Amino acid sequence: MGKNTEIKLLGTPPSPFVNRVQFVLNLKSIEYEYIDENLACKSELLLTSNPVYKKVPVLFHGNKPPIPESLIIIEYLDEIYPDIHPILPSDPLGRADNHFWANYIDNKFFALFEELRITPGKEGKEAIKKQIIEGSGLLEETFVKLSNGKTYFGGDNVGYLDVVLGCFLGWTKIFEKLNEFNIFDEVRTPKLLEWTNRIRSHESLKDVIPGSEALMNFYMMVMKHKPPRVA
Amino acid sequence: MGKNTEIKLLGTPPSPFVNRVQFVLNLKSIEYEYIDENLACKSELLLTSNPVYKKVPVLFHGNKPPIPESLIIIEYLDEIYPDIHPILPSDPLGRADNHFWANYIDNKFFALFEELRITPGKEGKEAIKKQIIEGSGLLEETFVKLSNGKTYFGGDNVGYLDVVLGCFLGWTKIFEKLNEFNIFDEVRTPKLLEWTNRIRSHESLKDVIPGSEALMNFYMMVMKHKPPRVA
Repeated sequence: MGKNTEIKLLGTPPSPFVNRVQFVLNLKSIEYEYIDENLACKSELLLTSNPVYKKVPVLFHGNKPPIPESLIIIEYLDEIYPDIHPILPSDPLGRADNHFWANYIDNKFFALFEELRITPGKEGKEAIKKQIIEGSGLLEETFVKLSNGKTYFGGDNVGYLDVVLGCFLGWTKIFEKLNEFNIFDEVRTPKLLEWTNRIRSHESLKDVIPGSEALMNFYMMVMKHKPPRVA
Repeated sequence: MGKNTEIKLLGTPPSPFVNRVQFVLNLKSIEYEYIDENLACKSELLLTSNPVYKKVPVLFHGNKPPIPESLIIIEYLDEIYPDIHPILPSDPLGRADNHFWANYIDNKFFALFEELRITPGKEGKEAIKKQIIEGSGLLEETFVKLSNGKTYFGGDNVGYLDVVLGCFLGWTKIFEKLNEFNIFDEVRTPKLLEWTNRIRSHESLKDVIPGSEALMNFYMMVMKHKPPRVA
């Protein structure tokens, strides 16, 4: 696989969006060079390769133009390596369903965690925790529907939505601890709770998501640089 | 084409997102039934077919589960009718590029128009108009790059980004008029300005976008139901 050696990933370990790309690269056994970005002092490489958003991850594939944004990158990887562990289904309806829930996870579900972080006061935070719990209930239903009695969103194998949601499981633990609530539990989301344990210990992900201490340090750094809203 | 008759679209004419789907259905000569939604009193059909967002468009294809969200619908249509006027390129990098700019158009560029609508005061509005102008400059660069000297973002034929951005051209006129500025002009965005005229008069779109009066009436209704922020 000569072309594997041409893949480079610009990232930072605590980013679940970077972890997504690493998860897919591991699933597909693609060798790559990891380039660590310093978000406190953004590199020239980041600023020139993703001038619109200036965010990681950015994928470099040989001399082709750089590709930013995690969902776009993992779909690109799935298209250039279709034979090794495909993550998106091949039928148009299954693809549409996967895209719909990935957008929900990124634009609604994940967005609530940032909202929880910056919202001041117990009352405001409780309202957002309630929305997160409703969201995990919706994802439980989706899991039951898409997994169809099998192990993953993707069925017997890790699929696109397992990657999309799975890479956030280090951060859900941190938010549960900091805000004293359960995002996934045995009563409301029994299937998804089992799934979280399977995904967290998955061979292709377990060394990708940083430990709780590293994530907590990153959280504290974010709190310092982008403080919560004033009450 | 028996299966064409199974396509139904739930929508409302002033929605650029609904217009996108109509544009693609026309490009691909797909017959469909249009079901008009009343957003002031949402139908049971809308609430059950898009329970997460409760928004149009929603596509129905035979007895399959309904498909919401315009970008997901047009990609679905492109996959089930790949031979008639394909809109997405077939190469993975071209697809990634198209997805990147579609996300930019929806999440950044279009989002600024809603921001302009709800922002009070001349100073606040001027700052957002400046961002819209920067955005159209970025889209001019993208057009020059992707069209490669040809007529459309898609090259010789209308492609995915022509659909994604093109369906907003009724609304850009309204915002230009209401806010006394040019989003596209001969000096800053000469190529895109030519393109707007070509797209607005395109056979598959010209009867889809409502006239200025209908859009203005819709704008006034939105202003009444979701008033601007208080200064």
